[in-house]
Parts: sequence; structure tokens; C-alpha cells
Amino acid sequence: MGISYDLNVMDIKNYLKEKKEIIDSFFHTYFRDRFMPYVLHEAMLYSLFAGGKRIRPILALASYEACGGDPAEIVPYASTLELIHTYSLIHDDLPAMDNDDLRRGKPTNHKVYGEAVAILAGDALLTEAFSILSDPSWCRSINEVNILKASQEIAAASGARGMVAGQVQDMLSENLEPDSETVQFIHQHKTAALIRASARIGPLLYGSRRDVLDAMTRYGNNIGLAFQIIDDILDVVGDAEEMGKPVGSDERINKMTYPRLYGIAKSREIAERLLSEAVKCLADFSSEADPLREIAGYLLSRRS
Amino acid sequence: MGISYDLNVMDIKNYLKEKKEIIDSFFHTYFRDRFMPYVLHEAMLYSLFAGGKRIRPILALASYEACGGDPAEIVPYASTLELIHTYSLIHDDLPAMDNDDLRRGKPTNHKVYGEAVAILAGDALLTEAFSILSDPSWCRSINEVNILKASQEIAAASGARGMVAGQVQDMLSENLEPDSETVQFIHQHKTAALIRASARIGPLLYGSRRDVLDAMTRYGNNIGLAFQIIDDILDVVGDAEEMGKPVGSDERINKMTYPRLYGIAKSREIAERLLSEAVKCLADFSSEADPLREIAGYLLSRRS
Repeated sequence: MGISYDLNVMDIKNYLKEKKEIIDSFFHTYFRDRFMPYVLHEAMLYSLFAGGKRIRPILALASYEACGGDPAEIVPYASTLELIHTYSLIHDDLPAMDNDDLRRGKPTNHKVYGEAVAILAGDALLTEAFSILSDPSWCRSINEVNILKASQEIAAASGARGMVAGQVQDMLSENLEPDSETVQFIHQHKTAALIRASARIGPLLYGSRRDVLDAMTRYGNNIGLAFQIIDDILDVVGDAEEMGKPVGSDERINKMTYPRLYGIAKSREIAERLLSEAVKCLADFSSEADPLREIAGYLLSRRS
Repeated sequence: MGISYDLNVMDIKNYLKEKKEIIDSFFHTYFRDRFMPYVLHEAMLYSLFAGGKRIRPILALASYEACGGDPAEIVPYASTLELIHTYSLIHDDLPAMDNDDLRRGKPTNHKVYGEAVAILAGDALLTEAFSILSDPSWCRSINEVNILKASQEIAAASGARGMVAGQVQDMLSENLEPDSETVQFIHQHKTAALIRASARIGPLLYGSRRDVLDAMTRYGNNIGLAFQIIDDILDVVGDAEEMGKPVGSDERINKMTYPRLYGIAKSREIAERLLSEAVKCLADFSSEADPLREIAGYLLSRRS
């Protein structure tokens, strides 16, 4: 395969596990106090703790570390990426959208709490992200201008010119013949934009030089697109139990995906090339960027 | 009536009209460039220009003016309150929620664009609000700490402990016997929280003293609650054409409202008292707070 970095599977799995626990622990503390109406609190936590791997916040922590920062400082800000990702999954699963009954092996939010509460739990998670992103007291060593930059980045990546645009296009394209331009647009917006933002949060919060930000942007672009391609491949060939949803569900409703456009083998080749590119973007970074390098390898090896 | 301020109906109508045009003009400029997919852009603008009176952003402009600021400076930030209000209306109208076909005399967003696009257009409007609120380049004379405070205020007012909580409770309470505690909870959260935030944006962005912020908070609380009570009264007695939706629609599905709890006459009395209280909260402000005083009177006189 194309990735020259010496991948240590053991290390990266520990790193991901440890960082996931830090994010989860933040969420437990942040949402510790129940608020009225309890069903809203419960519905928000249900999806937040439904088995997400916290890849986006972990990328943010790792990118901050790669820039020379202490990732512990930015846990609350990094966590907002998971709040936004979770809201997007709840809304994507709704009957009016993908109409999915299962997500990661568990009933989707609206199957448990009903459509109305599911829509509002999503709205609340999205809003909570920006509540955290507008509170400088989470980390006094980060200046307010940089917090605003991170918030702007996340808003841009998840809004009408980012993730939401991708989701709308994804739905508009159902049952149409896939073409490379549309597939690119969907993936760049629906998935890659927020993953790229995750990688950019590090240098933005740290106040890194422009060339560092540019390198991280290219890294994020590459792994963001690769991430979605691998997801689509797993959706076709993966094990239903590991994926937590019926294999082939995207095929079934004729979503525009790389496997449908290029087939499995070519798609895997493209993902490998993108991940290899991603690692190359980090050439000027020291060993502090090793977690980012290993994450690229991990993405290619993942089975769920 | 209880409001001692000398209300000049002519002036306040001109003031509201002029300020509405300023807000609308900002939206026209901000959303001038279409983006892909066009249907998303169109759906967002459809509801944004469906006849809203821009009361929340106008309150923000007026509260900034009352604190000694030039309202022209904060138009983009004030406008975010309308983006959030609009998103909440789109989601409230959905079949899974209030299932309304008409809003201000026009078909609701999902009747025109379908449920999926309506949900996503709401999501995008909410996200756009925080995109604007995290961009300090809109007004270089406002320092970043104050922008973050305004953003935090708006997020808190519209999220899981604010507007969304009110909407969830509103739905949970349908068809139940109204009790004053629940009606209070719904109104305080669903409507008053964002209106109070609109009034607090002025002192927060201007960096006013604590006592100024406190006075504005009390003003906002009073008019926020009064606003919803008057809305509920108009929904029972108002003219269908003026309200733009079938009169009695809230009665029909047994929403918890002041009129149902106390009857029309008593509800009107409560609204009058609240608006009179609101004006009293501004006792220490100069004539720069006149628009805020007149808005209180205007709310009581409104017919739609």
C-alpha cells in the first residue's frame, strides 16, 4: 500500500481509546445535570452515547498537538465537532430523509423518542456546540480571536455551504445515475468539510502560521474524502454486525457513492492514494504529528 | 391602560418599518450569491422573506441604541436573531410537530419544498446565525469578548435550556389540562428567552455596566412573556386574514396558553401589566431608550 509511515496498530488503537475516553468524560460532566423536559436531555444523550468513535474531536486534539499545543486544553472545543456530527446523524436518519431504523446497531433516535423530539434533540445538539464555542472560559490560554476563528470554521463546514449542502444534494441525487462531479460534491460537503474543519481547528486555536494551516487543510481534505469512500465500501462489503446497520442500505436506495461509480477495487485504490497524500502533507511536522499520521493508516484498516 | 409613556403610534410604525428595511437589506446582500444546491438557498430565503416583522433584531438594535451605541454597527449580529426565529418556525410547522400548512398566509416551508429540505433549511439557518456571530469583521469597533458574550447569550436562549426546551414541553403538554406552572415554563422558554436575549444583545455588545444589563434583562423578560400572551389572544380573537393562519388553531389541538388558562380578559390584563412593568425597567435610561418604550406599547396594540 501507498502509506510509507510505519504503522503501529497497537499504539494508535490505544491512542484512539484514550482520547475517546477524554471526550466521553467531558460529555458526562457537561450533561451531568438533567434539565427539563427530561425527555429532551435523554434523547440528546441517547444519540451522543450510541457508539460514536469520536473521530472528529480526536482529529482536532491531534491537530492541536501537531501544532505544539497540549490537547487537554481544547477538549470542550474539540467535542463540539461530535455534537454537530451527532445532530447530523439524527436528522439524516429521519423518515423524511434516509428513514433508517438502526444506527450502529441501535434503534435510531426517532424510533425511540418519536420524530418531533428527534428533530428537536438534533437542533439542541447543534446549538449546544455553538454555546460551548462561544465560551472563552473553557480555556483562558486561547485568545478570543482564535476561538472565534474556530467557531467560524465549524459553522462554515457544517452549514448551507458545507455539510447541509451535501445532505441536500445527497437526497436530490437518489435514484439518479452517479456522475463523478456530483459524487465529489456530495462527499466534499457532506463528510469531508467537517473532517477538514476538525483538522484545521488545531492550528486555528493554536494561532499557527499560515503554512501550517494550509498543510493541515490539505491533510483534512484528503482524509475527509477517504473517510467517506471507505464508509461507502464498508457499506457494500462490510459485516452487518460490525457496521450496525443493514449492509447495502445505501445501494438499496441508490445513493451516489464511489463504489457505485468506480467499483470496490478502484474505490479502495482511490482511498489509499488519498490517505497516502494526507500523510505526505505532514512532511514538515515533527513526531508530534505522529497521531495524525497513524490515524490515516487506521482509517484504511477499519472494518466498521 | 397601565403604560404611562406617551405613545406616538405614527413614530413607532415608521421606526419599525425603517429598521425592518435595514435588516431585510442585510439579508438581501448576505444571501445575494446563490449556492448549490439552489433549492436549499431558495428554501432558506423563502421562509426568511415570508413576512416576518423582524421584531427580535429590531429589539437588539433598539437596545444597543438605548445603551448609547449606533445601531447601524450591529445589524449583522442583530439579524442572527431573525435567522434563529425563522429556523424555529420552519421546524415548528413540520408534520411531526404542529403540522401547519400555512404561516403568515403562505404555504409553510415543507408544503413548498418537502419535509427533508425544510428540516435542512432550518438547520442551515440556525448554523448561519452562528457563522455570522463568529465573524468579528462585521464590526471592528466591537471587541471579540463582547461578540462571544452575544453569541453565548443567543445560543443559551435558543438551545436545550431555552427555546428548544419550550418547544418540547409545548408538544408534551398538548391535550393536557393547562396549569400555570407549565404554561409559564413553555412561554418563558419557547418565546421569552429569545426575546430577552434580543434585549440583552445591546448591552452585551456595547459592553455596558452590569446594572444596565440587568435592567435590559427585566425589560426583555416582561415583553417576552407579554409578546406570547398577546400572540395567544390574537390566535383566539384575531382576524384570520391578519394572522395568516386559521384562527383558533392553537385551541384546536389544545395547546397550553394563557387564554385557555385565564380567559381573554384576564390574559389581556396580564399582558398590559407586563408591558407596563417593561417600560418601568427603563426608568434610568435617557430618550435613547424611547424606541424600546414605544415597542412595548406597539406590542399591546398589534392586531397580527
